[in-house]
Amino acid sequence: MNILFSSTKEKPDFWFPLLKKALPEDRFFAWPDTNGGDIDVVLVATHPPGTFNGLGRLKLIQSLWMGVENIIGDPELPRGVPVARLIDPGMVAAMGETVIAHVLDWHRHHYCYREFQAQKIWKRRRQYLASDRSIGILGLGELGATVAAKLVAMGFNVAGFSRTPKNLPGVNSSTDIDEVLSASDAVVCLLPLTPHTRGILNKDAFARIRKDGCVINLARGGHLVVPDLVAALDSGHLAHAFLDVFEPEPLPADSPLWTHPGVTLTPHIAALTEPRTSVGRIAENLARVRRGEKVPNTVDFAAGY
Amino acid sequence: MNILFSSTKEKPDFWFPLLKKALPEDRFFAWPDTNGGDIDVVLVATHPPGTFNGLGRLKLIQSLWMGVENIIGDPELPRGVPVARLIDPGMVAAMGETVIAHVLDWHRHHYCYREFQAQKIWKRRRQYLASDRSIGILGLGELGATVAAKLVAMGFNVAGFSRTPKNLPGVNSSTDIDEVLSASDAVVCLLPLTPHTRGILNKDAFARIRKDGCVINLARGGHLVVPDLVAALDSGHLAHAFLDVFEPEPLPADSPLWTHPGVTLTPHIAALTEPRTSVGRIAENLARVRRGEKVPNTVDFAAGY
Repeated sequence: MNILFSSTKEKPDFWFPLLKKALPEDRFFAWPDTNGGDIDVVLVATHPPGTFNGLGRLKLIQSLWMGVENIIGDPELPRGVPVARLIDPGMVAAMGETVIAHVLDWHRHHYCYREFQAQKIWKRRRQYLASDRSIGILGLGELGATVAAKLVAMGFNVAGFSRTPKNLPGVNSSTDIDEVLSASDAVVCLLPLTPHTRGILNKDAFARIRKDGCVINLARGGHLVVPDLVAALDSGHLAHAFLDVFEPEPLPADSPLWTHPGVTLTPHIAALTEPRTSVGRIAENLARVRRGEKVPNTVDFAAGY
Repeated sequence: MNILFSSTKEKPDFWFPLLKKALPEDRFFAWPDTNGGDIDVVLVATHPPGTFNGLGRLKLIQSLWMGVENIIGDPELPRGVPVARLIDPGMVAAMGETVIAHVLDWHRHHYCYREFQAQKIWKRRRQYLASDRSIGILGLGELGATVAAKLVAMGFNVAGFSRTPKNLPGVNSSTDIDEVLSASDAVVCLLPLTPHTRGILNKDAFARIRKDGCVINLARGGHLVVPDLVAALDSGHLAHAFLDVFEPEPLPADSPLWTHPGVTLTPHIAALTEPRTSVGRIAENLARVRRGEKVPNTVDFAAGY
């Protein structure tokens, strides 16, 4: 098959050696070289406009990322071609690590001790046990379910919100987001960005989270209403926020988030697609295309992800 | 039995309600009220000098902490009375959380992203998988073994040093500390402080740790040679240090550690004894004393802990 790689974020130099090793019979092209339109599968991650022009026999659009809102939002997206989200075990593991790092940073008051260090203050905060704390996970897909299981194993109380009912061991799950927020000290957002979830981290949500809690947004910048977060931090209701995603990215230098003492921010690195662990999944999907089979984890356009 | 509580750090007001509930038949005294010397068991944590004066029929010295170097170092310590270290499940769990928080802070480059945030720099560091990293645990007692198991479960390579040979699932353990240091990117110190371990985190040790690694000292300040650490950070060999313990404590305001950009420090809070979870263990030990039985986890004076 002929495979086109098209991304403004991921580098073909990094991916091609691994892809060619995993798929020795296929031929790879880096956009804008579209092999005269003779392309079977396109691999995308924030693709440049015009990527799909003239690709008349496309069988699959394979995202290199789990989030696909840039693909779905492209008015040039060819109709009828399945779009597969990438479930990369390395990326899922990385997200688990990042969530645990931020939850523990808040739970053990490390964000606060850094402030104390800057002021040379030697002072102890009260210690809590994991069983004293409730973590709310928004989104119980591949990422949320993995993260929830890890937090349950650490002894935290875990509540989870999802659009469709889920049954996860040890997780108090609900399709009512207000119920989950009201039961949470710390809230982790891992939702897909859709018209239903845009702005979901807003002042009503923050008011429901228990006092001295925190917000951890590792999903998309569009989930968060920034002025509402700043107000909830300034009022002292929320103790801290850990933000990895912004709108737009890179975060502009004049954003108040850069310097807010209640915000720890990272440059969209919570969980990067890991070529070493994802090439195997891509190869499996391509083998299915070759055999004319259905590919798993394709986008449900009605649901928006 | 008559129980004396003697500590300059732990508060009897906090402990007595829980102790009295767990041990309704016993009588409790707060030092300097020694009930005229009629005391069966003394509970200590950095006890004031003279605590043991006139306690002629003492059957057990029960530490409220895991570290007992202050007890062993007291020249007034009565001979022949067993000293029990406290193995508090809440404290052990807290130590696990703190180690994981610091290991992930280093592994996911969060210490570095905080520097970037302070400078409004949007820049990504390379992502590593847990399986790319090796964590060395110094000390494989109750704490080290628990921490090692958690890190193994997260996919890290784990090496461990202990004075006596240990066999822990998934842990590459050794009684040769140089072997463990040479195999480690990050080193976690959980050793007891003894004449053998004082100054063990020194320039020779840092030179053996792999470049861009980190040092996490959660044991005692006496393990660390501060100028050697500062040199290893300044040379760029070590990427970061997470320090919770110092000599003396509180850390003096003129210590270079407060302001060193390569140091994250906390005020000896990595794992606090948790009265809620430890009172049960203390009650078990006291029941053994009452029955004339041996108490577990007593100090081996030859080993020094």
